[in-house]
Amino acid sequence: MICKKKDKPGEGEYNKMEELMVAEKTPTFEVKQKSVTVFAPATVANVVCGFDVLGFAVNAPGDEVVMRVTDKPGITISKITGDNGRLPMDPAKNTVSVSVKHYLESIGRSDLGLDIELHKKMPIGSGLGSSSASTVAGLFAAKTILGDDRDPIALLPFAMKGEEMACGQGHADNVAPALFGGFVLIRSYEPLDVVRLPHPKDLWCAIVFPDVDVPTREARQIIRKKVDMKDAVTQWGNVAGLVSGLFMQDIDLIGRSMKDVLVEPVRSMLIPGFYQMREMSMELGAVSFGISGSGPSVFAFTRDEATAQKITEKLQSFLEGMKIDSFSYVSTINDAGPKVIG
Amino acid sequence: MICKKKDKPGEGEYNKMEELMVAEKTPTFEVKQKSVTVFAPATVANVVCGFDVLGFAVNAPGDEVVMRVTDKPGITISKITGDNGRLPMDPAKNTVSVSVKHYLESIGRSDLGLDIELHKKMPIGSGLGSSSASTVAGLFAAKTILGDDRDPIALLPFAMKGEEMACGQGHADNVAPALFGGFVLIRSYEPLDVVRLPHPKDLWCAIVFPDVDVPTREARQIIRKKVDMKDAVTQWGNVAGLVSGLFMQDIDLIGRSMKDVLVEPVRSMLIPGFYQMREMSMELGAVSFGISGSGPSVFAFTRDEATAQKITEKLQSFLEGMKIDSFSYVSTINDAGPKVIG
Repeated sequence: MICKKKDKPGEGEYNKMEELMVAEKTPTFEVKQKSVTVFAPATVANVVCGFDVLGFAVNAPGDEVVMRVTDKPGITISKITGDNGRLPMDPAKNTVSVSVKHYLESIGRSDLGLDIELHKKMPIGSGLGSSSASTVAGLFAAKTILGDDRDPIALLPFAMKGEEMACGQGHADNVAPALFGGFVLIRSYEPLDVVRLPHPKDLWCAIVFPDVDVPTREARQIIRKKVDMKDAVTQWGNVAGLVSGLFMQDIDLIGRSMKDVLVEPVRSMLIPGFYQMREMSMELGAVSFGISGSGPSVFAFTRDEATAQKITEKLQSFLEGMKIDSFSYVSTINDAGPKVIG
Repeated sequence: MICKKKDKPGEGEYNKMEELMVAEKTPTFEVKQKSVTVFAPATVANVVCGFDVLGFAVNAPGDEVVMRVTDKPGITISKITGDNGRLPMDPAKNTVSVSVKHYLESIGRSDLGLDIELHKKMPIGSGLGSSSASTVAGLFAAKTILGDDRDPIALLPFAMKGEEMACGQGHADNVAPALFGGFVLIRSYEPLDVVRLPHPKDLWCAIVFPDVDVPTREARQIIRKKVDMKDAVTQWGNVAGLVSGLFMQDIDLIGRSMKDVLVEPVRSMLIPGFYQMREMSMELGAVSFGISGSGPSVFAFTRDEATAQKITEKLQSFLEGMKIDSFSYVSTINDAGPKVIG
């Protein structure tokens, strides 16, 4: 049922990606600039009802990568800040350098020497696509240095390699929105098929990260392997409603579709005060509330900045009452994806 | 999370429906014409990946109801044609009269006398929403006679009453598209929340009904109660892809999203030669192929009428080779819903 490039003219992302991934068509890229600084956005995967298939990018927080061309072939990491020493400096073990290495190999430029400075501007293990933001910033920096002007989708397979290293599975629901900005649907993994979705411009996002430990691998493992068909039907009704709401710019529909009867009931157990935080957020006027990725960060959609601010203040003071440190962010949806900032 | 009418101005179908269903707001309707003839379209529920949440209407086949105001209060059925005597003439047992009765009660017009002639122009038990088409035609006829100019969504609860009688469950994935035309998403049943979806104008539908017996109740009972989370994720990725394709007018995306890993593998066993028919259809250029509702009818989307014609001819001759009688229909998507034709 899959429309192959050779049969039909390409209409969607799928065909574009297939074309970009064909190695023999890849042009040779030459160094266009000696250094660059790139920002890439944090992302909220799942978007409550769309487990493993939906994600969106925010304007804050995000990570920064400074990349410089060096004299010696190979990738080095000279500095990592903001990680409290948690990330590996070894280029063979760091998701950013590994992804960049795969990218350089794919375009026949393994001869190139690149040095990476990674500045973490967001917490690690927060459920906000921390590794994706770093990886996408690194890949976009390399692409920029080489003047590779192909669609960013050409970078997706390499970003996914990084995710595989970081989370044990090559998911795309963080890297794809970090790479493209906006909302992204991963319709299928085999073959990989991503669809960029529109969204209402006046949608605000309040994010609160309670600083408790919920490792992605473990958060995945507690999810049930079998589910009731009845619940699955409820879930895909909501996924379809959310996607429709995004296309229709219907914030009410988006809000009432963002219900998760399958994953949230389990994962929320790892987040202290999850249901109280939902209630507080909804009472303050949130459109919807849920877990970002595998948590422990939570997020709420709102119609304006002031409501988002009120929600983050309320939730942070609630968490403080439970002696839990937290970080918060208020942002609109990021539409640009990674961005050259220096 | 549900936006109540009193809190926010109505933006979606949900709010409109809620408003229309509030009994005290219902105006009194008077007889505006003495008789009417209404056509209502057949429908394809599920649309392969959207089990219980998606459906669309076609221009052919469909059913016709002739309704006349009578002198005596109550509903009578004077004639049913095209059913080979299978449908009850008793107004207390026929889905059309029962639905119309509920509708009249809801608007305080149980005093009215109405006679129904039902002309079945499509096979019964075909998986094409036969009972929905009849019910919607009946309700729309009553609405027209009474000059009830509210949005057709006001009729949905009464049409669902008819479905409950016909199929044992009050599903809306046939009645909603029959009532509105086009593609319809039933996001949720409790509360009932329907969303009308757009579609590419150049989408054709080839339908073939193999005349074998697959009762809806039994076809529902063979569906598994538990499913793998992994398969459920695949399914809602495809549902999201199909909905996106409808909004984006991207027929390739629609085609590659129309895969069902949960229901079709089971239900297809009740349809002789299902996988051969799929292969034939795809080879002839179908965009997608699957079961209509609970079957045994199958349908294919195509980009033009000629391809749809070729597919119906090929499948009918294949079924003939297996000594199975069949009917076929070639149609564009019906956008009008029920229509006054006399």
